[in-house]
Parts: sequence; C-alpha cells; structure tokens
Amino acid sequence: MAAVDGGEVDHLAGERATAHFDVDAMKVAWAGSRHAVEVNDRMARLVASDPVFRKDTRTMLSRKELFKDTLKKAAHAWKRIVELRLTEEEANLLRLYVDQPGYVDLHWGMFVPAIKGQGTEEQQKKWVPMAYKFQIIGCYAQTELGHGSNVQGLETTATFDPNTDEFVVHSPTLTSSKWWPGGLGKASTHAVVYARLITQGKDYGIHGFIVQLRSLDDHSPLPGITLGDIGGKFGSGAYNSMDNGVLRFDHVRIPRDQMLMRLSQVTREGKYVHSDVPKQLLYGTMVYVRQTIVADASKALSRAVCIAVRYSAIRKQFGSQAGGPETQVLNYKTQQSRLFPLLASAYAYRFVGEWLKWLYTDVMQKLEAKDYSTLPEAHACTAGLKSVTTSATADAIEECRKLCGGHGYLNSSGLPELFAVYVPACTYEGDNVVLLLQVARFLMKTVSQLASGKQPVGTTAYMGNIQYLMQCKSAVNTAGDWLNPAAIKEVFEARALRMAVNCAQNISKAPSQEEGFSELSPDLLESAVAHVQLIIVTKFFEKLQQDIIGHGVKEQLQNLCNIYALFLLHKHLGDFLSTGCITPKQGALANEQLGRLYAQVRPNAVALVDAFDYTDHYLSSVLGRYDGDVYPALYAEAWKDPLNETVIPDGYQEHLRPLLKQQLKFSRL
Amino acid sequence: MAAVDGGEVDHLAGERATAHFDVDAMKVAWAGSRHAVEVNDRMARLVASDPVFRKDTRTMLSRKELFKDTLKKAAHAWKRIVELRLTEEEANLLRLYVDQPGYVDLHWGMFVPAIKGQGTEEQQKKWVPMAYKFQIIGCYAQTELGHGSNVQGLETTATFDPNTDEFVVHSPTLTSSKWWPGGLGKASTHAVVYARLITQGKDYGIHGFIVQLRSLDDHSPLPGITLGDIGGKFGSGAYNSMDNGVLRFDHVRIPRDQMLMRLSQVTREGKYVHSDVPKQLLYGTMVYVRQTIVADASKALSRAVCIAVRYSAIRKQFGSQAGGPETQVLNYKTQQSRLFPLLASAYAYRFVGEWLKWLYTDVMQKLEAKDYSTLPEAHACTAGLKSVTTSATADAIEECRKLCGGHGYLNSSGLPELFAVYVPACTYEGDNVVLLLQVARFLMKTVSQLASGKQPVGTTAYMGNIQYLMQCKSAVNTAGDWLNPAAIKEVFEARALRMAVNCAQNISKAPSQEEGFSELSPDLLESAVAHVQLIIVTKFFEKLQQDIIGHGVKEQLQNLCNIYALFLLHKHLGDFLSTGCITPKQGALANEQLGRLYAQVRPNAVALVDAFDYTDHYLSSVLGRYDGDVYPALYAEAWKDPLNETVIPDGYQEHLRPLLKQQLKFSRL
Repeated sequence: MAAVDGGEVDHLAGERATAHFDVDAMKVAWAGSRHAVEVNDRMARLVASDPVFRKDTRTMLSRKELFKDTLKKAAHAWKRIVELRLTEEEANLLRLYVDQPGYVDLHWGMFVPAIKGQGTEEQQKKWVPMAYKFQIIGCYAQTELGHGSNVQGLETTATFDPNTDEFVVHSPTLTSSKWWPGGLGKASTHAVVYARLITQGKDYGIHGFIVQLRSLDDHSPLPGITLGDIGGKFGSGAYNSMDNGVLRFDHVRIPRDQMLMRLSQVTREGKYVHSDVPKQLLYGTMVYVRQTIVADASKALSRAVCIAVRYSAIRKQFGSQAGGPETQVLNYKTQQSRLFPLLASAYAYRFVGEWLKWLYTDVMQKLEAKDYSTLPEAHACTAGLKSVTTSATADAIEECRKLCGGHGYLNSSGLPELFAVYVPACTYEGDNVVLLLQVARFLMKTVSQLASGKQPVGTTAYMGNIQYLMQCKSAVNTAGDWLNPAAIKEVFEARALRMAVNCAQNISKAPSQEEGFSELSPDLLESAVAHVQLIIVTKFFEKLQQDIIGHGVKEQLQNLCNIYALFLLHKHLGDFLSTGCITPKQGALANEQLGRLYAQVRPNAVALVDAFDYTDHYLSSVLGRYDGDVYPALYAEAWKDPLNETVIPDGYQEHLRPLLKQQLKFSRL
Repeated sequence: MAAVDGGEVDHLAGERATAHFDVDAMKVAWAGSRHAVEVNDRMARLVASDPVFRKDTRTMLSRKELFKDTLKKAAHAWKRIVELRLTEEEANLLRLYVDQPGYVDLHWGMFVPAIKGQGTEEQQKKWVPMAYKFQIIGCYAQTELGHGSNVQGLETTATFDPNTDEFVVHSPTLTSSKWWPGGLGKASTHAVVYARLITQGKDYGIHGFIVQLRSLDDHSPLPGITLGDIGGKFGSGAYNSMDNGVLRFDHVRIPRDQMLMRLSQVTREGKYVHSDVPKQLLYGTMVYVRQTIVADASKALSRAVCIAVRYSAIRKQFGSQAGGPETQVLNYKTQQSRLFPLLASAYAYRFVGEWLKWLYTDVMQKLEAKDYSTLPEAHACTAGLKSVTTSATADAIEECRKLCGGHGYLNSSGLPELFAVYVPACTYEGDNVVLLLQVARFLMKTVSQLASGKQPVGTTAYMGNIQYLMQCKSAVNTAGDWLNPAAIKEVFEARALRMAVNCAQNISKAPSQEEGFSELSPDLLESAVAHVQLIIVTKFFEKLQQDIIGHGVKEQLQNLCNIYALFLLHKHLGDFLSTGCITPKQGALANEQLGRLYAQVRPNAVALVDAFDYTDHYLSSVLGRYDGDVYPALYAEAWKDPLNETVIPDGYQEHLRPLLKQQLKFSRL
C-alpha cells in the first residue's frame, strides 16, 4: 500500500473496511492510468525516503536557512535525476514531491518554454542546451513594481543602438523595477526580460529579451544591474523558499540577437519586421500553463481534503451518551455538508484538468494546421477554468483547516503552509477577476453572434440550443430525479445561458458597449462563473461515460459528480431561481438529495482520500497521517519548536523576572 | 490629523478632497464619542512613537526572538502604564495598540475575570491583588489535546483527598494534556485549571481550580508539572508571539481552598455542596467576552478595508487611452462590488458591537435583579453575532488581500499577518458552527412556543409577527424603493422567520426531535445566519435613528447601511426567492440599487476609512500608508529582508556553484 509509511497501528482500519469500492482501481481512475499510479508512487517514495528532502521542520527555519535548504534540495534533486537517469516524466514528478517552491520551477516552467516558444531555431540551439545542463539558471522577468496584470503597461525599455548593434535595457522609473519574478532575487544567472522595444525612435510595445544578470564566475550581479529579494511572504515556510526578486537596469547593453526573434526581428539597421510565424502560436503556451494550474488545483485541494477527512474520522466531539465515547465529527451532517462537496470538487477538478490536457494537444494540432477558429473558445475556457478552480481551491483549503478545529491552526497540521503556498495561484498567470472578465467578453460576443446564426463551438456549443434553453422548465419532481445527468445538465445550461443573455440585454441598454460592459461587470463575473461551472459539471459527466474499471468505482464517482453539481446548485440557488430554471420546490428537492448523497459517501470517505495515494511525507500533516495516530504525533511535534529548547524562556531574566519580583524601574513623570 | 505620521507628500489628497462629509464628525460616530476619539488617538500615538513598540520587522524574527520581543513589549507597556498612571481604559487601549498577542491578554482577559466571576470574596481578596500587581501571571487552562468545544468531555481530574485536605490534579491520558491555553507554555506562573471534580468516589463534573505552575523564585515548573509550547502556528509573526502551551499533571496536590468556590464547594470532609449563588451569573462573563470579540471583528475588518481602499486608490491598471495613465483600480465596478460591502460590514459590525455593550449592562442588571427570563435570548444573540461577524471578517481580510493584487501577498502589506492572527477567532470561545447550532436550537424552541402564544423577546420579537411575515409580499417596485428601511427590514424578517419555520416543520416530520435536528443541521445553520444578519441590519437602522452630528455623516452611514443589507440580499438571493419574500424582478432591482450606492460611496471611500483614525504604526502596511506613497516604501521594505544581507546568497558555494560549474559529484548507480 502506497501511503503507509511504516508503523503497525491503523486507527482508520475500521473506516477503510467500510468502503464499498476497490481502492486500487480508484487510484487508477484518479491518476489516469496504471502507469501513472506506478510512477507517481515510485517517485513519491523516492523523495519520502531521502533524508535531504525532509520538510517536517521547514516552518521553523529562518528565511536564510530556508533558502539555503531550497538550494540544497534543488541540487540534490538534480543529482538524483542524473544518477538514476530519470525520464522527463519522472523528473517532473520528483520535483513535484520535493514540494518546495524554488528557482527550478521557473527555470523549467517559464524560462525554457519562453525560449522554446519565442526563440528562433538558432536561439534555441544556443540557449536551450545550456539551460538543460544547468550551465545557466533562468527566470521570467515580466511584472514590475507598478505593473501586474496589464502587460502593455510595462515601463522597462530596450532601445536599439545601431552603432553597436545592441539593445540598451533600462529601468526609467522606480515603478519599472522588475518585481516578483521567482528565482530572480538570488539564484538566476539569466532572465527572459519583457521590455518595450524602441528602435528608430518608435515604441513597438512589449517584447522578450534574454539578459544575463550575474557573472558565471562568482555569481555577482553584472554592471548596471541591481538585484535583490522582495522580502517575506504569507506564512511560515510556504513560498518563502522562493527568491522572488527585484531587478533594476541602468542602461545595460545586450547583443541584438538576444531579442527573442521568432515572431518579430530588429534588423542590423534597426528596422522592425514581423516574421511569417503567426502570433497565435503563443496561445499554445498559455493553454499549456493554465492546464498545469488546474491540475495543481486538484492536487492542492485533494491534499487538504485528505487531511480533513482523515482527521474528522479520528476526532471526536460531543454526542456521548452517559459518559461514553464522543461522536466522530465526520458523522455530523454539518461537517459532511462542508467537507464532502470539497472532496467532490477535488475529483471534479482532477477530471476537468485531464480533459484540459487533451484540449492542449487539440489546440496544438489545430495551430499546426493553421486552423485558428477554435482558439478564442479554448482561450476563454482555460482562462475560466484557471480562475474558478484556483479561487475555489484557495477557499477550500482554508475551509478544510477550519474543519480541523483548533489543531488546524498549528503548523504541524500542514494546512497553514498549504494555504499560504497555494493562494498566489489566484493572482499569478492572470488575476482571477481579470480572467473572468475575459471569459465574459467572449460570452457576450458569442451571444451577440447567435442571432446571425453563427454556431458556437466547444464548451459554448450548448448556447446554440438557445430556443429551448431560454424557455425550458425543469421536469424534476422528486429528489431522486436529480440523479439524472440530463436533468442537471439542462438546468446548468439554462442558468448559464440565461445569465449571459440577461447581461447582453442590459449592456445593450447602455450608451455604449464599453460603458455597459463596465457597469455590468459584477454581473458579468457571475455569468462567467456559471458558464465555467457548467464546463466542470459537463466534463465530469463525460468522464463517467468512459470505461471505468473496478468494483464500485463508477458508483462512487457518480455520487461525487452529483454532489458537486447539486452543491453548486444549492450554493448558487439565487441564480437558478431568478432565471426561472427551477422552482423553489425543486431547489429544496436538490438539497434533500444532497443529504442522501452525503450519507452514501460517509462510509467511503476515508477510502476516497486514500485513493489520492499520498505519502505522509507529501501530506506533511500530523492530522492527515495514514495511520490516524494523531495525538501522540501532535504531542511529539510540539517539542521540536525552538521555544522548547529551554524550560525557562529566553528573556525571563530581562523581562519577566523584574516584573514578577516588582523590580521594574519606573521613572516618575 | 490623527493618522498622519509625518511626511509631506499626500498622494491621496485628491481623494480626500472629494469627500462629501465631515471626517472628524465621522470619527466620533465610529469611535462612539468625542472622548473615545481623543483617548484612542492619544494611546495610538503613544505606542506609535515609542521605539520599543516597533513591529515593522516582526515577521522576520525567529520564534525565540519574537517571543522575547513580546516579553519585552509586555514589560515595557506595564512600565508605561504605571509611569503615566494610566486609567484602566487607557491601559486597555495601550495594549490594543501594541498589537502583539501575549500572555497579558490571557492574564487580564481570562485569568482575572475567572477568579472574579467564580471565586468567593475571600479568594478574590487573596488572588486578585497579586494578579493586579503582576506578582503572579495567570492563564486559563481549559481545552485539552483531545477535547475542544465540548467542555463536558474534559478528562483532567481533581480528586479530593480528605486525609490532607488537598485536591490531587492529574492528567490520566495523553489526550487529557492541557493544550492551547495562551501564556501557558512559557510565561504563566499560575493557571485556572478546569478538571473533573471527584470527591467521595463521585464525579461532579467540570470545575475550576487555581494551580501554581512555576516557582516564583526561578520560574522552573513545580514538581509533577510538565510544561511546553505547542509549536508554530499559522503565518509569520501573527500568533507566534503567544506561548500557547501544553501542560500535564502527575498527581499534583493543591490546597482545597484553591477550588473556585463561588458556585459550589467541597467541605473539609469532602462533601460537595452548592452555594446559593445562581449559576446564571456565569452567563454574564460569556456575554462580556463575546461582546469584545464582536468589537475586535470590526477592528480587524476595518484595518483590512482601510489598507485595501487606500491602495486601490493608488494602484492603477489597464484602461489607458493611447499610452496615457491607467485607471485607478478603485474605479472598477468589480473592485467596488467586492470592497464596498466589506467597508459597509466594518461599520455594521462596529455598531452592532456598540449595541452589544449595552446588552451586556442590561443583562448584568437583570441578573442582579434575579430576572433570568431574557438570558436565553441574550445568549443566542451574542453566540450568533460572535459566529457571523468572525467568520465574515476572516473571509473579508483574505478578500482585501486579494483585492491588493500580488503585493498583498508580501508581509510588508500587513495583510498576511492580519489574516493569520485573526482566523483563530472563528474557533476560540466557541467554534462558529457549534455556536450557530445553539442559535438554531433557540430559534426552534422560540418557533415551537409561538403557537402557545408566548411572546418572543428582544432580537426575536419580530417572530411574534408571524401571521403577517409568513404571507407578506414585498411592495418594492423600483430600485429606489429599496432605500426604504421598512422595505428592507420586512424582507429580512420574513426570510429569517420563514427559514426557521421551514426547519421546524421539517424537523417535526422526523422520527424524533433530535434526529430531525441532526438531519436538518445544515439547513439550521443557514436559518441561524439569516436570523443573525437580520439583527445586524436592524441594529444599523436603529443607529441611524439616533442623533448623528456632522455634515453629511448620516447620509454616508445610510448608504453604507443600505449597501450592507442589499449586498446580503444579493449574496443570499436563493433564501429570499425560495421563501417567496421577493420576486426575481425585485432581486434585480436591489442589485441595480446596489450599483448606484457604490457610485455614491466611491468619492467618499478614502475619507470613510480615514475615519477609522488608524496610525500607520497600527496598520503596519506599506500599501495602507496614510500618504499613499506606496512604491518607494515597498521598494525600501524589501531590502530589510535577511536574505538581502549578502548579494551572493548563503549556500551558493555548496549548492549553486557546483551545479553551474557542472561539478556536482554523481555516483553511478
């Protein structure tokens, strides 16, 4: 069994015995294939068994110790990858299970892909092999102190000097300081820097440039370059292992051929020319990155849920009869109604993330065939899924923490760090609100084209069914009717479409389209969320139509899918009622069905989180231990705190004793 | 002006100039009186100007440094309190503005009140003067490793030994270890310990005992006592300044007269007897503590909102026309629709907190007159308000952080620490879900008694109007109709009552009352929330009926009150629609009115947070600076990070250079 880290006691054995399904088969359904289970398991154990990758005292390290620990782990991980000749898949998983943000994330995740995506073949030949061997370490320097989401507002300049055939990279203002790039502050030797390209007196907007930042001899910043870390971030441990950095340029010169020239070039004379490579190719990268973010959401959420479910089965409160044992908190309906929808969400995000992987390959194939027709839809879909899954996951981790009661507030629960390290996902790679507005803009366009008979594609195809969806009424008559996928899909489609159409109609009453869009933007956010939730629900249903092997596995997934959908229906009941998709009575029936589904999940809950197949090392939570032996572990963990190094605390002589002995020296004022 | 901490630039001057009201008068409305403004201001400045109370590098300290810093600040604060002969009100405010959790909070907030509330006059005479002079430091040891909310489940025993006239205090199991009490781990010399009283072979349940923990000579734990800190908690800085502790007893003997004996005693012979003091007196303490928690909620929320509003007026994104300046994010409707309801909530909680203070004095008067009739209502009301305001505040602080974009993730924004230090309020002094279920239980009882003609009192008085409220339909016909307080109150009352009645009816269908209550508990939570939100809205309206002086002040508060109510209506639209209180059309009109109200708040937003009158020291946020000079401050703050002490990071030689120089030593496997 993958998740057992030794030990003989299993306080959760009783819970595991009540499961109505084959847990190993569920692991396959979760991971995607038997191969995926095997390689995940192998890499997770490789990391867990290596003392260099210990992380149980990480939250107690000072910033400097933590950063040094990250450098150590990164080098050691690389050593193991080379020694064991790991495949790229294995290497990526090893890094995932090391589970500590660091410069390698940006090196592999942003620097290399930027050069591959935006560099010419010649540039790739020069830079990629160096990066692959770690002869250079790269990061991705886009955001500035005064400029985040709006890339077009960046102030850094790269001015071509035809006299020397160089670009002069410069930070003209304080707010133009590069700010936030991970790996920039201390580790990187190079960066892909985004700057306004100026040549022949004209500003051609934002382009990427490869800039060397530090000496390869002694790691000192090159002349004209100011580098530093931007300071502590949310939480203990968490993202403080990363050297998010600040970077200023004082007229730094780079050769002309370090402009990334796949899409456009500056000639020796300083002429700006476009290549014949279509700009749309860049969309592929964006879809790829956002797909990984959705996958990460299901990973983070499932970790939190795993901890909360296991501990809820161990923890007992109230409900004792005449001094007998108290009740497991997992038996309380209030606990179930908060926790099981999050368990269902973890599975829902996992499957929509899997589908996004397919979408990415589909997009790439179409791009190569120069078919750009489905790009806007794919872009809106990935933007929306990134936004909805990351926002919900951030909230859900914190909810799981609260569901663990007071002990969830201890670092040893793992949940504070999981939350702190996760929340930036709501902001990076597109702020979630900005992204939803992009989705909404796409939806408004799609609605406006319906009249002209243009058939919407992909995840907006349902909008073509406007005649029916604008007037349909749900036929649900009993709580059981809500188990019918068609019944659920219909009301989610009707809700999403009616909200979009309402917004479009209200915008059309405004003096101008832009003014209307701006005024209605809070409603547009809700409309976009409705659309994205429909996508997630739909993809879960589609997953269930595939072959799913193993005793009871499909039944469990059906329950979770229904919980996910009906939970959303209950949460957004106002949407469904105000658009007339359902009646109050039908809403109450959905809620009733939800309660029955929770009861069905209850005996399977622990086994459903076991199926995530996480090691105790990866979970890093005394509350989420596989064996449920929580209290001795909590107790033992406490004594590791530096404050317990001495019985009498540092400061007693100076600040406590004089107080207690009435020997504070007061000045009479 | 209170909030200016020197400096000459004011980037927010333009924002301040657009306010339509008298900010100084609003300060009085917020603080409660001119006196309150003055004394708050004076104490805040006293703290801000004292270098010992600096907190700008707090998140960078190690756990031991942070704890020592807390001891230092506590001793210094006491020194200043004595030297300046501060009144109790002034001393409390000084501690508030020091703004660092520490043992003094529990000493004054729990230890002293417990002895005053549960000790006999003789006991008070003996212990309280020592505590007042800090000859002893006390904490409040109730929760155990395995037992939180359910006090009756505690395992620690205090067994009377008639041979020696002593109690033997003992921890029979690991899970009976006292766990969480603040100030216990390192600072306290004494504790009020809750344990099962056993005498003459019988268990009389949980009682309080004064137990000395540490030697007053050298601070070492007394024989039989094991003491320690329970380890790191959520966030950097934050609650890590507090020594939440673990405590185990190995047959520790204390004199019989250290049992707190106001309500019951054990005689010299070991007989357990009740005194004639009514048990209800203890309710007074509970109402008092929860009232302070609601006041703290408005304080924490207003700090977060102040930071987010000011920075949203400084920060610019998108919307530039042809390279011109970008738009202040505060102008975006999406920003307004997320932020202004939180601003309104801060004011709403402030006023309901003020009313709770009145309720406390009312309860105390009634207790003295032995009138216990309104106690259950007062208890439900405070429990509900504690739960709703703390949950919403925790979420709102995190929302404010997200509203500050990426920079909100930096410790220098102040928001991560504010969140981490605030969230335990959702768990301590009654877990929020447990409290809401208590409210629901009271509501169910009230509903069941309506038929018998019993008139509900206080905040449940509206339920007496059941005939009307069960069938009324809102007469709102235009967006403007929603500005009528009666229209709002009616639908909030109808919603709360109908939800409660629905629950009661559904419970009555269950095989038993208890089973029904358990099955319906998720619905009961929602019903309780609806009731509590009605209380907050009602108290805001009542505040507006009082004399409120100052140009434009009442108008601004009216806007905020309407925003608070209509925001809730929109957020819980499903409740209002499914109970038939309003139509979808009326819901849309409320939303329309909400948009208009946001537009009215916009020019006043910065002045409305200025009225909180917080110093930059108290806010401790570069984003929330009074002068709005954010970017130079962010930049300067970064360089304080320990990681920036050297340009080449610690660990370069060992872990980066070998990697870059291709000199990692690989073993061939």
